[in-house]
Amino acid sequence: MDGIPGMAHGGDLEAARRLFPQAPTPFLDLSTGINPHGYPMPPLGAEVFARLPEPAALARLEALAAERYGAPSAAHVVAAPGTQLLLPLVAGLMPPGGARILGPTYAEHRRAAELAGHAVGEVGAVEGLEGAGLAVLVNPNNPDGRLAERRVLLGLRAGLLVVDEAFMEVMPSGASLGGEVGRGGVVVLRSFGKFHGLAGVRLGFALAEPRIAERLRASLGPWAVSGPAIAAGMAALGDLAWAEAMRARLAAEAARLDALLGRHGLAVVGGTALFRLVRGAEGAFEGLGRQGVLVRRFEGRPGLLRFGLPGDEAGWERLGRALDGCGAARGG
Amino acid sequence: MDGIPGMAHGGDLEAARRLFPQAPTPFLDLSTGINPHGYPMPPLGAEVFARLPEPAALARLEALAAERYGAPSAAHVVAAPGTQLLLPLVAGLMPPGGARILGPTYAEHRRAAELAGHAVGEVGAVEGLEGAGLAVLVNPNNPDGRLAERRVLLGLRAGLLVVDEAFMEVMPSGASLGGEVGRGGVVVLRSFGKFHGLAGVRLGFALAEPRIAERLRASLGPWAVSGPAIAAGMAALGDLAWAEAMRARLAAEAARLDALLGRHGLAVVGGTALFRLVRGAEGAFEGLGRQGVLVRRFEGRPGLLRFGLPGDEAGWERLGRALDGCGAARGG
Repeated sequence: MDGIPGMAHGGDLEAARRLFPQAPTPFLDLSTGINPHGYPMPPLGAEVFARLPEPAALARLEALAAERYGAPSAAHVVAAPGTQLLLPLVAGLMPPGGARILGPTYAEHRRAAELAGHAVGEVGAVEGLEGAGLAVLVNPNNPDGRLAERRVLLGLRAGLLVVDEAFMEVMPSGASLGGEVGRGGVVVLRSFGKFHGLAGVRLGFALAEPRIAERLRASLGPWAVSGPAIAAGMAALGDLAWAEAMRARLAAEAARLDALLGRHGLAVVGGTALFRLVRGAEGAFEGLGRQGVLVRRFEGRPGLLRFGLPGDEAGWERLGRALDGCGAARGG
Repeated sequence: MDGIPGMAHGGDLEAARRLFPQAPTPFLDLSTGINPHGYPMPPLGAEVFARLPEPAALARLEALAAERYGAPSAAHVVAAPGTQLLLPLVAGLMPPGGARILGPTYAEHRRAAELAGHAVGEVGAVEGLEGAGLAVLVNPNNPDGRLAERRVLLGLRAGLLVVDEAFMEVMPSGASLGGEVGRGGVVVLRSFGKFHGLAGVRLGFALAEPRIAERLRASLGPWAVSGPAIAAGMAALGDLAWAEAMRARLAAEAARLDALLGRHGLAVVGGTALFRLVRGAEGAFEGLGRQGVLVRRFEGRPGLLRFGLPGDEAGWERLGRALDGCGAARGG
């Protein structure tokens, strides 16, 4: 799994159209790990778009996020227009020095750390993060789903440990380090859009000790988060019943995807309930793409593919047919 | 006009409620310079909220903004979730040193420059910016509406000249420096939400030479701007007829506001078509506030108030009545 250079991003349908100009459209986009069953957006009054978001509304959202993510208090939570934008700010909390990233993983962490002036090394095991000035991991990891043990993470000595919990909602409870940020030295990133299927609103959170949270808040300024994002966050983060039911639904659908992939000779070697990673898929990216099914490939690793979940029965059927077609194309 | 320390922000209705607990609600909020006649939001499909904004969609928005703002090309434009968030990034383009800000003005520029490590001095005239490492002005200025001459600005020698054109839409054409960013050494900031009355979507732009634009783009990352913001920007920035009609409407309403304020003994000493600055208004902030009309005051300058435009006839009547009531309260 090491040495995936230059991982590009999923979800770029215009790039897919250039790559597969003959493919039937619309594409079935399985190239991201975003929940296809999005949380229903609350009705948005005109004032949500018209007015500057109020400081008190942002504070309420941060208090709700603290509760939902287990942070000690609202002072430990900073809302942002997506966690993506937080990456260079968080990397910049440490003076330029040596950063280590548990890899291979989401490529933006390396880019952000380099942007903040760090010399970045990739390590293949959590223990390799020990002693780093800036230590970064995605937990569970994207794309392989590897989950680092809480006990091991808490035992690490590092200048600053950054734990990107972008897909933590679908993991067993108790795996998050959100409750531990009060001790300092740890920043936890929580993505809103992936599990709630609302990636377009741009909302994410940093959990950190108040001193660090204040620094991030100062960099973002008073109105970084949009009115629609605050409204979506308030509705969705307060809806524990939806979250509970969604976790069960995604687990069932991930099992269904594993079975479908397995029937087509694709071995699932990792992932989370929001995406599955398969090996032995040489040629499948192109074979599926030509049929209008977009999955995620990794540069230099032709046999490795990540599949997101189809959003409806038509999608499942289309994926099944495309895999059938692909098997034939691969000379199966 | 110099020496307004610690200007707070307008638009904070919850703070207003704490300040004037007995005031009739809803407040008539005239505390911002945001156009009360917002551009009608286009219909937003579910995918705008659900999917990650596509790189190609962002590129189209930047190309349209380049056209609208007169920048040489799309490579000279960086979209962001509001210009606010750009301030520390732009200030950070120069190594920490001496920054000078034409003041008094919007307080966030000082905060951002200090955050980027600069020692900040305030100057009272454009010529005072000459020779600064980082030179910052708001043009037209907020709150006094002072417009710096283009010729003077282009003649300034500074390491980097930052021109915040947040309210430029309502000024005579030709005052913007957007067409000059290709020569380097100048960054122009354009706000989307104020003139278009859509501050809640969070959208703003930096115009700069491509080398600088790329640095800002790298700091923001690939998905800083939300799906709703891209949709709003594409609809509104392409609608020149709306903009033209709105400029005329705002000019007429600003004149109406001046007349109304004048009838109540408040002398308009500056502003733009989106806000008017008055002197001699001692006690009017409280007098209006108690009647549920919120205007903008400036710490340490009790006689100075900024008025935004009412959005409808009911608002105009309420403002008129409140000014009447106020005059009585002030013993007029």
